[in-house]
Amino acid sequence: MQHLLSVDDMKESFIFDLWSKASDQKDGFSDVLKNKILTNLFYEPSTRTSSSFYSAMVRQGGSVIPINNVKFSSAIKGESLEDTIITMGTMSDCIVLRHPEIGSVDKAAKVSSVPIINAGDGEGEHPTQTLLDGFTIYYNHKKNIDNLRITMVGDLKNGRTVKSLVKLLSRYSGNYFNFVSPKDLRFPQDSIPKKSFETDKIENVIADTDVLYVTRVQTERGSDHEYSLSTEQLNLLPKNSIVMHPLPRVNEIPRDFDNDPRAKYFDQMIYGLWCRMVLLEGIMS
Amino acid sequence: MQHLLSVDDMKESFIFDLWSKASDQKDGFSDVLKNKILTNLFYEPSTRTSSSFYSAMVRQGGSVIPINNVKFSSAIKGESLEDTIITMGTMSDCIVLRHPEIGSVDKAAKVSSVPIINAGDGEGEHPTQTLLDGFTIYYNHKKNIDNLRITMVGDLKNGRTVKSLVKLLSRYSGNYFNFVSPKDLRFPQDSIPKKSFETDKIENVIADTDVLYVTRVQTERGSDHEYSLSTEQLNLLPKNSIVMHPLPRVNEIPRDFDNDPRAKYFDQMIYGLWCRMVLLEGIMS
Amino acid sequence: MQHLLSVDDMKESFIFDLWSKASDQKDGFSDVLKNKILTNLFYEPSTRTSSSFYSAMVRQGGSVIPINNVKFSSAIKGESLEDTIITMGTMSDCIVLRHPEIGSVDKAAKVSSVPIINAGDGEGEHPTQTLLDGFTIYYNHKKNIDNLRITMVGDLKNGRTVKSLVKLLSRYSGNYFNFVSPKDLRFPQDSIPKKSFETDKIENVIADTDVLYVTRVQTERGSDHEYSLSTEQLNLLPKNSIVMHPLPRVNEIPRDFDNDPRAKYFDQMIYGLWCRMVLLEGIMS
Repeated sequence: MQHLLSVDDMKESFIFDLWSKASDQKDGFSDVLKNKILTNLFYEPSTRTSSSFYSAMVRQGGSVIPINNVKFSSAIKGESLEDTIITMGTMSDCIVLRHPEIGSVDKAAKVSSVPIINAGDGEGEHPTQTLLDGFTIYYNHKKNIDNLRITMVGDLKNGRTVKSLVKLLSRYSGNYFNFVSPKDLRFPQDSIPKKSFETDKIENVIADTDVLYVTRVQTERGSDHEYSLSTEQLNLLPKNSIVMHPLPRVNEIPRDFDNDPRAKYFDQMIYGLWCRMVLLEGIMS
Repeated sequence: MQHLLSVDDMKESFIFDLWSKASDQKDGFSDVLKNKILTNLFYEPSTRTSSSFYSAMVRQGGSVIPINNVKFSSAIKGESLEDTIITMGTMSDCIVLRHPEIGSVDKAAKVSSVPIINAGDGEGEHPTQTLLDGFTIYYNHKKNIDNLRITMVGDLKNGRTVKSLVKLLSRYSGNYFNFVSPKDLRFPQDSIPKKSFETDKIENVIADTDVLYVTRVQTERGSDHEYSLSTEQLNLLPKNSIVMHPLPRVNEIPRDFDNDPRAKYFDQMIYGLWCRMVLLEGIMS
Repeated sequence: MQHLLSVDDMKESFIFDLWSKASDQKDGFSDVLKNKILTNLFYEPSTRTSSSFYSAMVRQGGSVIPINNVKFSSAIKGESLEDTIITMGTMSDCIVLRHPEIGSVDKAAKVSSVPIINAGDGEGEHPTQTLLDGFTIYYNHKKNIDNLRITMVGDLKNGRTVKSLVKLLSRYSGNYFNFVSPKDLRFPQDSIPKKSFETDKIENVIADTDVLYVTRVQTERGSDHEYSLSTEQLNLLPKNSIVMHPLPRVNEIPRDFDNDPRAKYFDQMIYGLWCRMVLLEGIMS
């Protein structure tokens, strides 16, 4: 059984193999998962992530049981997460789980008879987001993911995507991080990489950036610090750099930058589809 | 790219071609959309319309991503409609959009990389409803849609279906409209066709009617004017006339009329399926 | 047309034929329902039951229209259950209906143009639950369902599963029932079988039991009587007995009993899938 619960579960060889296959995926359809069923078990709604897994599964020839409002159902009758997982494991071949509580995926994996893919456990992890974030860099930098200058901007304290991506990128040599945030939203000091620089002024670092990773204001997790980059600031970026964002965007990036060739935040959705297609095939076929 | 946002988007040739193919559709299944994915993006729930598109897509061999509660998801994190549309366009080949705000579909179409089908934008339009309404008349009147006497009854002020159908039928020659409503729910005076007659008493016109179009009381849009036709009134209709209703019905038509051969309001659902099958094929294959 | 509304609709020959086929079903996939569409029409949510029908339909090659929140849709516009049923019958080949009101399935069947499967009508019946409960006994007792000692424990007053299962098992010869409950949750006295014994102390009967059927506390139907069996009590069961539970479980059975070979409550979900696969095939192909 091969669960995917955390970035730590993914070895370098696993990642490069997946990225290599995802590079060739494009818009292909296949029947490789024809007689397989995926459960999309979302205790917290996430249209983007659940739709991406849905589309990926269908493109591989499989089917999806979509469960989007568990709170209205068994859970209100007092059923434990574990019993729901065992139950869905009798009906399907893999479970994509999003749950608001950190650690819930570990509980689920402990009892599950089918592989669990963590699609976000509260402030914990969301490893397929990290996979697609890493792939975006790899794919747009000549299949290279080291010796890069990565600038992360925004709420670096609350977002799980930034923490996981830093963890991943730190595995490769020569990557350097710029953390740009207001003082109360700084990157967690206990996990800050050695090769890094902190500032609250993006102009200090933007011209010296290969990857600009902009994060969303996490209003639903208590943050009320709005910010937005201007087109002028974004134009300080080098020509070959890329701009990423895990979405949804609020006002962090102006809409008129969307057609700039450096803007990759919507392409990330396409890459996510490719990565998930390869992942589902690897897990179930 | 071929969006379907409004009745005005549909040329006569497009409509007659679609109706002609729909006439032959019957209950066929095909694989013509085998590797295609449709997104059903419903910001407002509509079981009838979303299920009809779902069934139509599946009958053509395709798959559907069902999104029925957007308000619980990305939208509450502050994502714009445009970003959601761009995102779903990366994962699917066409988007059926229902949204409570008039004009929302135009915003969507402006940024979308895939065709948008308007499935109702508030008090705006719902062109596939108009397509199936027109087809119902065409199909039941020897594939003829001119020189008809159409009686529309009920809330003619708030319902978008009536306005759109009048717009469509006015394109063809010789059609005459009777508008039957209480004074405060009259058909909008600025778009009333020349060949028409207004009354608040259905007995004045019902015996001289080819098509009786009964509308629903729009309680959710503020109307509280209930009404219901009696079996006695309905029996004044000519033998070859037809009775239509966009559904859902509240009490406007008595249940004991359902098996009358003139009652076509449930057949309309079948026709809707045929029309949508042809439409989806035309847009995606 | 073959509806399945009640245990009374199922003749012995129908049941044994279904169970016999279900025994051979295992994890097979087929294309026998390739061009068929099922509507999962759930007015009350039930992840377990709707997912089981979804998975069963897909395994037979068919498609499912998932409708899980009818209350948010046509129903709030005042549409009757009958009109919704007629509408969904124009788009699909069978309707699985869960509705909170007893008798609603009979109303639905009266107007439906396609077969209706009752998936629970309030405090009424849930015949496919009874089918799978019976199959669990049949399958685990050498395809034998008579001369058994069945002990039912918990809230025997409010649960529909117990009443229906007693009705089914009473058809076969030699079955004997022990009813274990607190005084205010006793099995309905007007339908108590002749060959039965009532007690409020499980130790009186547990050692003399072939089938232990544990029920859920129906908190959402007003019961607040919690109870739980201990591992010590469960270990008084004979070696060849089986333990069943319709799920969801709250605390009635301790988790450390889950891996005991007598525990069949999760296997019941697998059996349910097999039974529903055979049922759907029988109804639609």
